[in-house]
Amino acid sequence: MSDEPLRPLPSTPDEPNHMSTAAFRDAAHQLVDFICDYYDTIEARPVRARTEPGAVYDALPDAPPAHPEPFDRVLDDVRETVAPNLTHWQHPSFFAYFPANGSFPSVLGDLLSSALGVQGMLWQTSPACTEVETRVLDWLALMLGLPASFTSTGAHPSLQSEPELRELLGEPLPAVRDSPGGGVILSTASEAVLTALSAALERHRRSSESVQQPIIYVSSQSHSSVRKAVNIVGLVPENIREIPTDERHAMDPAALRRAIDEDESNACRPVFVCATLGTTGSGAFDPLAEIAELCERRRAWLHVDAAWAGSAFVCPEQRGLLRGVQSADSFSFNPHKWLLTNFDCSAFFLNGAAAREHLLRAMSITPEYLRNAASDAGGVIDYRDWHIPLGRRFRALKLWFVLRHYGVKGLQDHIRTHCRQAASLERVIDADDRFELAAPRSMSLVLFRVADDDPAGTHSRALMDRVNDSGRAFLTHTVLPDPDGGEARFAIRVAIGGALTRDEHVRTLWQTVLESLEPLPTATKDS
Amino acid sequence: MSDEPLRPLPSTPDEPNHMSTAAFRDAAHQLVDFICDYYDTIEARPVRARTEPGAVYDALPDAPPAHPEPFDRVLDDVRETVAPNLTHWQHPSFFAYFPANGSFPSVLGDLLSSALGVQGMLWQTSPACTEVETRVLDWLALMLGLPASFTSTGAHPSLQSEPELRELLGEPLPAVRDSPGGGVILSTASEAVLTALSAALERHRRSSESVQQPIIYVSSQSHSSVRKAVNIVGLVPENIREIPTDERHAMDPAALRRAIDEDESNACRPVFVCATLGTTGSGAFDPLAEIAELCERRRAWLHVDAAWAGSAFVCPEQRGLLRGVQSADSFSFNPHKWLLTNFDCSAFFLNGAAAREHLLRAMSITPEYLRNAASDAGGVIDYRDWHIPLGRRFRALKLWFVLRHYGVKGLQDHIRTHCRQAASLERVIDADDRFELAAPRSMSLVLFRVADDDPAGTHSRALMDRVNDSGRAFLTHTVLPDPDGGEARFAIRVAIGGALTRDEHVRTLWQTVLESLEPLPTATKDS
Repeated sequence: MSDEPLRPLPSTPDEPNHMSTAAFRDAAHQLVDFICDYYDTIEARPVRARTEPGAVYDALPDAPPAHPEPFDRVLDDVRETVAPNLTHWQHPSFFAYFPANGSFPSVLGDLLSSALGVQGMLWQTSPACTEVETRVLDWLALMLGLPASFTSTGAHPSLQSEPELRELLGEPLPAVRDSPGGGVILSTASEAVLTALSAALERHRRSSESVQQPIIYVSSQSHSSVRKAVNIVGLVPENIREIPTDERHAMDPAALRRAIDEDESNACRPVFVCATLGTTGSGAFDPLAEIAELCERRRAWLHVDAAWAGSAFVCPEQRGLLRGVQSADSFSFNPHKWLLTNFDCSAFFLNGAAAREHLLRAMSITPEYLRNAASDAGGVIDYRDWHIPLGRRFRALKLWFVLRHYGVKGLQDHIRTHCRQAASLERVIDADDRFELAAPRSMSLVLFRVADDDPAGTHSRALMDRVNDSGRAFLTHTVLPDPDGGEARFAIRVAIGGALTRDEHVRTLWQTVLESLEPLPTATKDS
Repeated sequence: MSDEPLRPLPSTPDEPNHMSTAAFRDAAHQLVDFICDYYDTIEARPVRARTEPGAVYDALPDAPPAHPEPFDRVLDDVRETVAPNLTHWQHPSFFAYFPANGSFPSVLGDLLSSALGVQGMLWQTSPACTEVETRVLDWLALMLGLPASFTSTGAHPSLQSEPELRELLGEPLPAVRDSPGGGVILSTASEAVLTALSAALERHRRSSESVQQPIIYVSSQSHSSVRKAVNIVGLVPENIREIPTDERHAMDPAALRRAIDEDESNACRPVFVCATLGTTGSGAFDPLAEIAELCERRRAWLHVDAAWAGSAFVCPEQRGLLRGVQSADSFSFNPHKWLLTNFDCSAFFLNGAAAREHLLRAMSITPEYLRNAASDAGGVIDYRDWHIPLGRRFRALKLWFVLRHYGVKGLQDHIRTHCRQAASLERVIDADDRFELAAPRSMSLVLFRVADDDPAGTHSRALMDRVNDSGRAFLTHTVLPDPDGGEARFAIRVAIGGALTRDEHVRTLWQTVLESLEPLPTATKDS
C-alpha cells in the first residue's frame, strides 16, 4: 500500500463553494470601488447614525441562507442596510470621543494581514509576524522619544548617517535602566492596563511583602478600564485609592504621596499606580516626573496610560509631558486612536528586562503542543507570552505600512495640523462671550460650554444635541469635577484628530454651533 | 465674528501625505494581484518557515523613514522579506496545531471593516456594527443547534416557510432556560474563558457563600488558557482542581463529583467548571451531559470551551457530543479556527438572562463620557459591557460574508470533507503495522506514532521533523497521559481543516510520511 496510500478515497460528493482567486479579484475590485465611493461621498452623510433601535436587526433575515448568495447581493445589503446605519468615525466632522484613525495605507496593511491569514502566537508559527512587530515597535519607541530601555535591544540606532531624520526625531529621553524591555501590539488600552496590572501583581506576589494587601492608585480622571481591570484581577474597591486632581484635572502628586504613606503605615503595599497622559475627560496630563520618582522610591509598578495623547509624542515639542517615563515600568498608547493605524493596534512597552520578566512570568504557560525547538533554545520572542490571548494576527503590517507611507515627517504634520486647528478653535471660543472654555486646551482637545450654564449643562446639552441632530458634526460631552469642591459641571468635548479633518471642517463645526445657539432660549423652555 | 468663524486660520504649512482614493484604488489592485498570486503559488512554498532567528528583524532598516516611501517599495519588501519568512497557515498541507481558517469572503468582510473604520463600543457609536453582530450570532446559535436561550431573543425562528433550510439545520437542542442570553464576538477562546470566569466569580462574590474559597475545575487536558485565566483573576494553584481523564482523555465525571464533594465538605465552593469539547491535545470530548447535571445541582458555572470542535456542530450528526449544553452557562467556539472566518473571531454565548446579567455586572463600568440617550433608555446592546476591551471593530462583517457566501450547506460540506479525509487517513494508519493510532480519531484530528516507539517518541519525533523539514507538510505533536498510569507518550497530531486542503493533500502528506520513514533507523542513531 505504500505507493498508493489513501487510495481509493470516496469521491467528494459535495465540495464547499470556495471562492476562486479570479472571483476574489472581481469581488475585491467591486468592494474597493464601493470603499472609494464611500470616502468620496462621506461628507454628505450625517455623522451620527439616525437609526431606530432594532431597525438593522429587523432588516436582516431571521435565518442564514441554505445556499450560497452572490457577492453582489451582499454588497447591496452593505450599501442599503449597513452604511446608512453607521456612525461615521472617518467622517471629517467626527469630533466625538477620541478619533479612531484609519488611513488607506493601514487598510492595505490590514488587508494583507487578513489575506495571509497567519497566526503569530509563537515565533515559529510565522517568524516574519514576530520580527516585523519587534522592529516596528522599536521604531515607534524611537519616534516617541522613549528611552532605549523600552526597545527590544536596549539601544536606539545612532543615525549618524541620517542627519535629517535625527533632526526630525529629536533626542530620545535618556534611559535610567540599562537593559532591554521591548514592545508588543495589544488590542486596546484596556487590555494594556489589565496586562500591566497582572505583571505588577505577579511582582507583588513574589515579593517579601506579598502578605500585605496590594493597593492600586488611580486619579478620579483615570480611564474606567483601570477599575474594570481591578475587578477582573479579583481585587475589590477597598484595594483602590482614588487620588484627587488639581485645577487642571491632573493627579495631585502630594495627595498620592500622602495616600501611600497612610497605606504603608497600615501595612498595605503600594503595588500599582496608573498615571494618565491625556485623560479621556479633559486631556489632562498627570505630572509624570513627580509620580515616577515616588513610585520608584516606594517600589510601586508605574503604568503610563497615554492611549490618546501618546501619538503626539512623535513631535519632539510635546515631550516635556513625557518626562518621567524613564522610571515607568510600562507605557501604552493607541496608534489606532491618533496615528492613522486602524483599530485594533495598541502599543504596549516594557521598560527594561525586569519589567519584561514580570510580564512573561504572569503570562507564560507552555503546554506540550506549543513546545518547539526555536522557543526552547530561548533565542526568539514568543508574543503569546506577552499578553492574555494565545492567537494573534499580523497587526504589525498595518503599522509598518503607515510608518512607511507617511514617514516621520508626515506623522508629525498630522499631529501638528490638529493641534493647530484646536488652538484656533480655542482662541475663537475664548474671544466669544457667549461661551467659556471648560478646561485648558490639551493638544487637539477643546472643552467648552455655554457661558454661565448651570452645572447640569442645560443649555450646553441642548446645544450639543442640536449640533448632533443636524448631522453636520458629532460631539460628545463629559462632566468635570469643580477644583474648588463645588458641583461637577457639564462640558462639551471637541476632539479634533480625524485623518480627513481639515481646517474647513473645524470652521463648519463652529458655524454649526453658532447656528444651533441662536434659538436656544425657546428650545430649552420646550425641553 | 459669527459669520466668519475661525478666520483667518494660518495656512497649513505641511499637510500629511494622505493617500487619495485614486491612489488607494491603484494600490489595492496591486495588492489584490499580489494576494491572488500568493494563493495561486502557495503550494510551491515550504509550509513551515525556514527562517534563522533575527533574519527578518535584521533585514529591516533600524529606523523609520523620514519621508514617504512609495507603495511599490513596501510591496517589494512584502514579497522579498515577509512572504518567504512566514509559516503558511493557509497552505493546504498545513496540518499543525489547529487550522486558522481564512477564506476570500472573510477577507472581503474584514477589508470592509477596516475601511469603514467604525468602532462599536456602544450601540450609538454604530448601530449596524452592533445589530449585524447580534443577528449573525443568533444565526450561528441556530446553525449549531444551541438551545434558543443562547440567542438574543430567546426564540429560534420557526422556518415553516423554509423546509429545506429546516431539514439542513436539524432540530436545535431544547432549551431548559426560558430567557434570552445572546452572543458576542471576542478575540480568542482565551479571552472567552477569562470572561466567563470573571462572570462566575462575580456571581460567587454576590452569593451567600462568598466567604468560601472559590474552586475551579479543569481536566488535565483542558487548554492552558484556563490556568492563565485563573492566574489573571488573582487565584492561585490551590484554587484549581485538575480532574483526571479516562482512556479517551475526557474528563471523568465521577472524579469531578468526588472532587466537588470533598471541596464542599471542606467549606470550599465549586464556582467554575470548564468542560472541553475537542481538547487541543487529542480532540477529546468531555461528557457534557453528566458534567452539566452535576454543575447545575452544585450551582457551579459551567463554561463549555469548544474552540476548535464547535464549528463541527453545524452538522446535525455531530450534535450528540453537544448534549448537555442546555444547562451550561456559557459556550464558546472559534469560527476563526474551522469555520472559514479569519482570525480574530471567537463566538461567546451566554445561556439565559441570569448568565448574561452576571457577565454584564462583571464588565460594566459607565463613565460620564460614554453615557448617551440610547444606552440610558436600556433598549439597546452596548457590547463593551460584554467583554474586557472597550473599543471593538466591526468583526461581524466577515462572519456575515462567510455565512452568506457558503450558506449552511456549504459550511456543512466544509466540515464533512475534513472529517471524511481524517477517517480515510485513520483507516490507512490502522492498517499499517509500522504505525499505531495514538488516540481515537476525533472529527478531523488524527493522532499516531511509529509503532512500538518509546514514550519520548524518539522515532516519531524524528519522523515528524523530517516531514516538517521537507516543507511538504507541517505537523505538530503532543504528549498524552497513559490511562493506565504509565509514562506519558509522544504523539504526532494531524489536524485536517485547511480551507484549501483537498484529498490529494492528505494523500501527499501520507506519502511524505512514508518516504520519511524509510531511512529512520540510521537517522535516529545519528540524532
